[in-house]
Amino acid sequence: MRAVDLIIKKRDGHELTSEEIRFFVRGLLSGEVADYQASAMCMAIFFRGLTFAETRELTREMMCSGDTVDLSAVRGFKVDKHSTGGVGDKTTLVLAPLVASLGVPVAKMSGRALGHTGGTIDKLESIPGFDPVMPRERFIDSVNRIGIAVIGQSQELAPADKVLYALRDVTGTVESIPLIASSILSKKLAGGADGIVLDVKCGSGAFMRELDQARLLAETMVCIGNGLGRKMDAMITAMDQPLGRAVGNSVEVDEAISTLKNEGPGDLSHLCVQLAARMLLMSGAAGTLDECALLAERSLASGAALEKFREFVENQGGDPTVCDTPGIMPRAACEEVIVSHRAGTVSRCDAFLVGRAAMLLGAGRLKKDEPIDHSAGVIVYKKIGESVESGEPIAKMLTSEPRRLGDARPVLENAFAVTDGPVAVPPVVLDPLRIFCSSQE
Amino acid sequence: MRAVDLIIKKRDGHELTSEEIRFFVRGLLSGEVADYQASAMCMAIFFRGLTFAETRELTREMMCSGDTVDLSAVRGFKVDKHSTGGVGDKTTLVLAPLVASLGVPVAKMSGRALGHTGGTIDKLESIPGFDPVMPRERFIDSVNRIGIAVIGQSQELAPADKVLYALRDVTGTVESIPLIASSILSKKLAGGADGIVLDVKCGSGAFMRELDQARLLAETMVCIGNGLGRKMDAMITAMDQPLGRAVGNSVEVDEAISTLKNEGPGDLSHLCVQLAARMLLMSGAAGTLDECALLAERSLASGAALEKFREFVENQGGDPTVCDTPGIMPRAACEEVIVSHRAGTVSRCDAFLVGRAAMLLGAGRLKKDEPIDHSAGVIVYKKIGESVESGEPIAKMLTSEPRRLGDARPVLENAFAVTDGPVAVPPVVLDPLRIFCSSQE
Repeated sequence: MRAVDLIIKKRDGHELTSEEIRFFVRGLLSGEVADYQASAMCMAIFFRGLTFAETRELTREMMCSGDTVDLSAVRGFKVDKHSTGGVGDKTTLVLAPLVASLGVPVAKMSGRALGHTGGTIDKLESIPGFDPVMPRERFIDSVNRIGIAVIGQSQELAPADKVLYALRDVTGTVESIPLIASSILSKKLAGGADGIVLDVKCGSGAFMRELDQARLLAETMVCIGNGLGRKMDAMITAMDQPLGRAVGNSVEVDEAISTLKNEGPGDLSHLCVQLAARMLLMSGAAGTLDECALLAERSLASGAALEKFREFVENQGGDPTVCDTPGIMPRAACEEVIVSHRAGTVSRCDAFLVGRAAMLLGAGRLKKDEPIDHSAGVIVYKKIGESVESGEPIAKMLTSEPRRLGDARPVLENAFAVTDGPVAVPPVVLDPLRIFCSSQE
Repeated sequence: MRAVDLIIKKRDGHELTSEEIRFFVRGLLSGEVADYQASAMCMAIFFRGLTFAETRELTREMMCSGDTVDLSAVRGFKVDKHSTGGVGDKTTLVLAPLVASLGVPVAKMSGRALGHTGGTIDKLESIPGFDPVMPRERFIDSVNRIGIAVIGQSQELAPADKVLYALRDVTGTVESIPLIASSILSKKLAGGADGIVLDVKCGSGAFMRELDQARLLAETMVCIGNGLGRKMDAMITAMDQPLGRAVGNSVEVDEAISTLKNEGPGDLSHLCVQLAARMLLMSGAAGTLDECALLAERSLASGAALEKFREFVENQGGDPTVCDTPGIMPRAACEEVIVSHRAGTVSRCDAFLVGRAAMLLGAGRLKKDEPIDHSAGVIVYKKIGESVESGEPIAKMLTSEPRRLGDARPVLENAFAVTDGPVAVPPVVLDPLRIFCSSQE
């Protein structure tokens, strides 16, 4: 088998066999397929697409190209959640203890911030003492003992995807639904969960800008996950403005704790309950989605979810008093508000620009392995549909480096628009996509 | 400027500017454009094509990426001919002395055999003593003195094309008309001729299998060459069966000498006269194509062309007695005929398979820099439309390595088919494409 023949086959619109895809993925790591051949193949896939069977096999081979996590020693049905990445998306911090408090084991690997989007591991590291590194045995043991553990993603997960993604990033071949789907799922499935609930973000701050593209990505991932023996569910949620009001690291942990106290922003609380309900339904905690949502709401109301968060933080070396005194987390030395120059209703609060401003303030990183400022970020006072007076604060910048304020200010100011007359509050859930779950309930 | 942005621009169907193409081509050599980016760009071009302006600029930049030959010291209008490569194509050996005998200077760089097609330089090296290497000054001086010199192609000609072609060859991006056109022309134009006559081969033994593709390639090259200030002409000629009857090195020189003696095979003689007529017309030797053809025919008939060949060979150290005694060239130690198993008319004499058989016998090479056997080759006794008896020889294999006969025999046998009833003799010229020359006459 020769790589060039497979490229030509795909280029000419033919379907690759399982053996051919296996040769290609293994060749990526062995060197039998050169990087210039892989990039040409990705461009051919960009134009020709992949069939369902091809996407499934590509996902399987990339998943099997490195470590796969064996969660069989964890009792019960293991459900994971994956978000395609957004701004102010701290749902994992709420969801994980929430479903764990209802008896569903959470053995989760999470990522770090990159570009304008944040990462759960960076956020958790805002908590003094919290350690996201754990040997595999203690990880399993923690989940069996207290029902929850969240660790950093292993570097050994799906190495073929890492090679391919790095190439796609510099060769204009990122924007291909089957390549995106197989990249996300290869890592996620290697994580070992029995079922996965996908939160596919759509809007200015998300990778998918258009609803039809987001839906296609969600459908593809659900089908591929099912095809590889996992229960799958997905919903399309809005990412035109940030989720909640806090964007950063310690500020997001703070907002997550408020939400676990049942005092969180409406959009965030609603999304957490909806995602939790799907995870609970998949694991069989109750018979209908409504019943599962009720269970989640009660856990937030009773304080059970917050209690589980406390237990989780303590188990990983973090200071659990953070729940009572969020001020023990890094606090920004500098704050500066931006105000509205006119009265009216907020019509835009652009997620991408708010995320970018937070990154410029130090909350994120442009390249892997850059250090971040856990105290930095943005607090959004006014979101779409909310009224504002002239001169009233609309957002606040936080950072420990005063020189960063000047870079971030114009970006953040640009994120907002205010108009006359009423503006509807946009929905959080754009498409519940319930059709996919029917075969699994 | 970033390579990835240019790839995305082309991928999305937009036209690249001259500056962008310059950045891309220069980056190929400087390393600013990585090979995996170049291959992704080629695949995007495969799907999106290039506009006329893009193809012209790509050709210009590749042409200027290395040495360009300055022929201004050669007196007169310098015309070159380029064939896209065929089997048994020894036209240069005839044409070059033919037009030189009529006062048109020939300062030619030629290539070597690769794959199933031969190379003029390898053929000339069959002549004892012939040297295709010459310092630039002596090259120019030879052309001014005797009107003709043929040397090997400089390694420094269009190095960006070399990099790109090597990548295209292993990434499934060879078959793109604008990329083929710019690759051929960048080298050819760097050779310094004022005008170029293109012989675009079409058929089983050629790179272009379909007439419409060959026509598109010819049209593209003519337009690009004109756009870069050269006179251009092109014709589409048949390559379903070999040209003439000899395929190899010394056997092709032998056949070329016969043609210069006006005793060559009809198809070869006809094509040489037609191509020579276009070269003569372009240089203003006469006013019409018919007049130019007549001049060429007369030169063959008078022996003037043969005399020029003798002078040319001697000037480059070769033994001119080859014209009288072709037997001084390497002769094959082993010969073996293949016979027809039935009586009838030859309906197939596949150029690709005959060329491949000749290569297997040692006349060509699969990879650059492999040695070749100048005595090896194939003599075709029966071509399409000719009748054959059962048991009558249809072709002969020549080689100095008897073990090669076994490999070549089935390939060569497969090249032929014999049917009942008459089969028309196919034309040599498929499309004279005269429309292109009108603006230049």
